[in-house]
Amino acid sequence: MDAVRQSDDVTPCDAGDVTAWDATADVVVVGFGAAGSTAAFSAAAAAAEVLVVERTGGPGGAAALAEGIVYLGGGTPIQRACGFEDSLEDMYRYLMAACGPDPDEAKIDRYVEESLGHFDWLVARGVPFDPTFCSETQMAPTGTEGLVYSGGEDAYPFNEIARPAPRGHLAKTKRSTGWLLMQHLANAATEAGAAVWPDTRIDRLVVADGHVVGVQGQRFGETVSLRARRGVVLAAGGFVFNDDMLRKHCPPLVRGTFKVGTEGDDGRGIRMAQAIGAAVRNMYAGEVSLPIIPPRKLIHGILVNGRGQRFINEDTYMGRVGQSALYEQDGDVYLIVDESCYEPNWMGLAASWVCETPAKLESEMGLPPGSLQSTLELYNRHAATGEDPLFHKGRAWVRPLVPPIGAFDLRVGRAPYAPFTLGGLETTVEGSVLDVGGEPIGGLYAAGRTTAGVCSFGYASGLSIGDSTIFGRLVGAAASAAPATS
Amino acid sequence: MDAVRQSDDVTPCDAGDVTAWDATADVVVVGFGAAGSTAAFSAAAAAAEVLVVERTGGPGGAAALAEGIVYLGGGTPIQRACGFEDSLEDMYRYLMAACGPDPDEAKIDRYVEESLGHFDWLVARGVPFDPTFCSETQMAPTGTEGLVYSGGEDAYPFNEIARPAPRGHLAKTKRSTGWLLMQHLANAATEAGAAVWPDTRIDRLVVADGHVVGVQGQRFGETVSLRARRGVVLAAGGFVFNDDMLRKHCPPLVRGTFKVGTEGDDGRGIRMAQAIGAAVRNMYAGEVSLPIIPPRKLIHGILVNGRGQRFINEDTYMGRVGQSALYEQDGDVYLIVDESCYEPNWMGLAASWVCETPAKLESEMGLPPGSLQSTLELYNRHAATGEDPLFHKGRAWVRPLVPPIGAFDLRVGRAPYAPFTLGGLETTVEGSVLDVGGEPIGGLYAAGRTTAGVCSFGYASGLSIGDSTIFGRLVGAAASAAPATS
Repeated sequence: MDAVRQSDDVTPCDAGDVTAWDATADVVVVGFGAAGSTAAFSAAAAAAEVLVVERTGGPGGAAALAEGIVYLGGGTPIQRACGFEDSLEDMYRYLMAACGPDPDEAKIDRYVEESLGHFDWLVARGVPFDPTFCSETQMAPTGTEGLVYSGGEDAYPFNEIARPAPRGHLAKTKRSTGWLLMQHLANAATEAGAAVWPDTRIDRLVVADGHVVGVQGQRFGETVSLRARRGVVLAAGGFVFNDDMLRKHCPPLVRGTFKVGTEGDDGRGIRMAQAIGAAVRNMYAGEVSLPIIPPRKLIHGILVNGRGQRFINEDTYMGRVGQSALYEQDGDVYLIVDESCYEPNWMGLAASWVCETPAKLESEMGLPPGSLQSTLELYNRHAATGEDPLFHKGRAWVRPLVPPIGAFDLRVGRAPYAPFTLGGLETTVEGSVLDVGGEPIGGLYAAGRTTAGVCSFGYASGLSIGDSTIFGRLVGAAASAAPATS
Repeated sequence: MDAVRQSDDVTPCDAGDVTAWDATADVVVVGFGAAGSTAAFSAAAAAAEVLVVERTGGPGGAAALAEGIVYLGGGTPIQRACGFEDSLEDMYRYLMAACGPDPDEAKIDRYVEESLGHFDWLVARGVPFDPTFCSETQMAPTGTEGLVYSGGEDAYPFNEIARPAPRGHLAKTKRSTGWLLMQHLANAATEAGAAVWPDTRIDRLVVADGHVVGVQGQRFGETVSLRARRGVVLAAGGFVFNDDMLRKHCPPLVRGTFKVGTEGDDGRGIRMAQAIGAAVRNMYAGEVSLPIIPPRKLIHGILVNGRGQRFINEDTYMGRVGQSALYEQDGDVYLIVDESCYEPNWMGLAASWVCETPAKLESEMGLPPGSLQSTLELYNRHAATGEDPLFHKGRAWVRPLVPPIGAFDLRVGRAPYAPFTLGGLETTVEGSVLDVGGEPIGGLYAAGRTTAGVCSFGYASGLSIGDSTIFGRLVGAAASAAPATS
């Protein structure tokens, strides 16, 4: 038993300094969320001896708290049962456009290639899917429907780039789909033979001659050293709960009020790999959900910034709206509605101002004189013929807004902004962690939000659990097939 | 002489693997630009044995190619001679607002504290300053004037946060002020006793028990190992010439057409430190100059994006305009002018379209119907009384634009966007490089664009040479005072 070091110290430990190994396995998986459970399953299914270490008391991670959407397409049984045609080509084109700028093409290619097989794999793990479609939301429906549009596929510009299809798949349960999904994935890992140590927080890697041979951490106040014969898989989540890392890498997210994840998302998995020279990428990127709908009829309204200007097509994915609102509009945005499209939203957000005229509303909101009036005048002029030449909102959602009109206060601090991080370790498609020179680090693998996945900035709901589980399976297989160190 | 490794390999070398040291000094400085020359000077002036290694044939770095502005204030002799009052408090308030969001307060504090003394230090090194002010530009004047507004201090919102004063100081010469400045700084270093090895490219750090004890690189095709008894100072520039790093960390800059720096700004200094666990920050941040003025009368025009919307006060610093244009407006911007403010600019950029009416102009530019007309109508209505309630452009620049009107095409690819990177290694005020756990790495120091300096995102011209030379002096002193390793 070695001395317990300072809690934020991620400096690697040399294998020669480990006095005794507390446990040994072929593959040690750090984190028992979506990525960790799938990595553990596939390594164990390949007959590797697997030990999963989890800092909380049980499995689940951020995925168990999330909506639980899995982004899959190309014509899954659920898509077909709901009457949607989809192809792998359309899915690929959508992802290349929506996950950019300049997303990881190799990962997207593999993600699409694995998509249909991954749906079957989830079903084989016992995850139930209801073959029904919900049009009202981009999140988990209040019912048990198994399919939603979760990325603005049916809105500009994506509807012109690829044939739209809903690809957000949800396990069959009301609202707690992430929890249900994780029950099945965690069970799959343990049933395949993975051992689990809960309440064990990994703090650093153990290295011999530049090769990762284990991890070291704390369990009930004592240091534990765990040897990995074939590989360590970091699946320890992102860093949205680490304000210091947010300030260094993506300052806009510091202001996010409703962080998506667990307190374990403190970036430790990323930092302990950086401490041995691992490369990171996309650290500025974050998804920010601004949950305006349901009801969908609110999309008839227009979103404006603090200068009364529109900035996005209102019918796109609400995660895109949230990103633009927080990163580009400084969290200073409002939704303008009229009586025919008004209704308090699902969270109880209601209009903060209602006025007889745009001039009055603009004045009460404190917007610059004339700004909202000018925006409304231009919008209404085009809307009279169903057009939106500035932002290309779909015709179904475009009609003039008629006084009296009101405004939802969606400023950061007033409305919930729900962010999580998308940047992390740079990995190969199979999950090897790369060093800053671009070479794989022997014995070190990663998956899930500890890595930079398919998204360089843009996002669709279900891509995080999608790439955690698809690449989790790949990394488990790769680590279990690595040569054993003696 | 050890074997030459692959050129992109920044993996550290263990001191035990060095067969022979080719040279030994107290302090080895990597890079002979603004940061390296000042670090070398102050270390040599403190009686340390100093070796500067430079990958090109001579001194200068990016600073020698730059405008050469040094950001200094608080009442320098030049400011006073030109009739400007300034205080350290105003300079501090301006920097805290302009360098954000959430800039490094400790570094700004020290920068301001050193400002007046640093001016005297430059003069003592022989740098001549002409005590005259140029109002026409935010860059190096065509004349020999020594002072310009270089950060939008006299524009909103900064003019409401701190009393405006010009703080951009220029060495006395026409245009090539960066070159002249670097002549003096390089001479100062060698006259103080620093030895210089040109044509030597450092590739990696040499480490003993986690402590940096030297560097290894190439000289005329052979590996050289250089021992540093007290410390290595990385002053090797930023990474704007490394497209792979730009894609990983700040994708907007990939599109910058006129990169500011030398080909040596490939981020190698950053990566060789990351390879031993050094922390980075602000890697997304980049300065982007969009050189619209002179002539200043163009500020009477309005900048609009591809949807015909204004997005910034046109009288602010052109580097702020460029950042917003490239990062937030996707490089899709135009300057709208009328006859009374029109003139081709200093680079020969001229109006690409001129039309009798806003409707015709909007149509010829391909902007959405009504968009530019609506923007102009609102702008002109307020401009009639000298107001700009949306963006707070100063009254002196606000008057209605009268047809015929024209437009400069400032889209990326048509107009030059001149970027460089602002992110880099995380360092203490004295220049110790921090690891990802927040602890100083023994024997490793850095300054200049290899580090994250006073700017987390926002910028003013002269802050790069300012923080390179101010913190370069501090880091040279710190490294020379470190205990010698045996």
